[in-house]
Amino acid sequence: MRLSSFSDYSLRVLAYLGVNADRLVTIAEVAQAYAISENHLMKVVHHLGRAGYLETVRGKGGGIRLAKAPEDIVIGEVVRQTESDLALVECFGNECCRIASVCRLKSILQESLEAMFLVLDGYTLADVLDTPLDRLIRTIP
Amino acid sequence: MRLSSFSDYSLRVLAYLGVNADRLVTIAEVAQAYAISENHLMKVVHHLGRAGYLETVRGKGGGIRLAKAPEDIVIGEVVRQTESDLALVECFGNECCRIASVCRLKSILQESLEAMFLVLDGYTLADVLDTPLDRLIRTIP
Repeated sequence: MRLSSFSDYSLRVLAYLGVNADRLVTIAEVAQAYAISENHLMKVVHHLGRAGYLETVRGKGGGIRLAKAPEDIVIGEVVRQTESDLALVECFGNECCRIASVCRLKSILQESLEAMFLVLDGYTLADVLDTPLDRLIRTIP
Repeated sequence: MRLSSFSDYSLRVLAYLGVNADRLVTIAEVAQAYAISENHLMKVVHHLGRAGYLETVRGKGGGIRLAKAPEDIVIGEVVRQTESDLALVECFGNECCRIASVCRLKSILQESLEAMFLVLDGYTLADVLDTPLDRLIRTIP
């Protein structure tokens, strides 16, 4: 069980911008930092921009930065927006299963998913970056 | 976010055997009931057999059946055994991330996964099949 790479990268882009909140960051830099494709990252950044999590400053010396305070970026909300498919098993979307009428699997898995999001809704990007200041300073590139 | 099809099919095979606990079931029958590949299902059945969840009766008129009472098959345990990859994001297995030292994403996602399994550990196959008897009888093929 994994989150989609789209969610994975979205969370990591936000974390990177949070760590480097004092300056503009380029997509090329994030791609290099995480060793992931710049092309894929552009789609992620575009989506995060449309969702209001980050903003782009165009032109020379431009880049991206968070558009909200880390305290206002709820991790559960980000994952809900970036996961296109929250059907844990195939039969979530299938009403034709032969044993559907006697099977509570769907509702049990749904309950487990809700428990997961209850945890994620309890954290913001600020919690993701909640680190002693000296370690934070050492890590900023 | 989805469970692997291996977990998906494993849960559904167990549910099918639970619904049809009064007789032996063939792999061909399960494959047909769920419209999934018989080949893929054979691997799933083999794995569930090795894990002690089902047993095979060989020969003419043979088939598979549960090897345990549904009350003794814990859903969380099945999923833990069938999911090969419980790393929600790529960086679960990567110690080289540039912001790893300031990023609590991994531990937050891990906590959400544990919340999910806490729910799944609270249910057995008997709960999955917990249905009024008249509906159960109507559904058995």
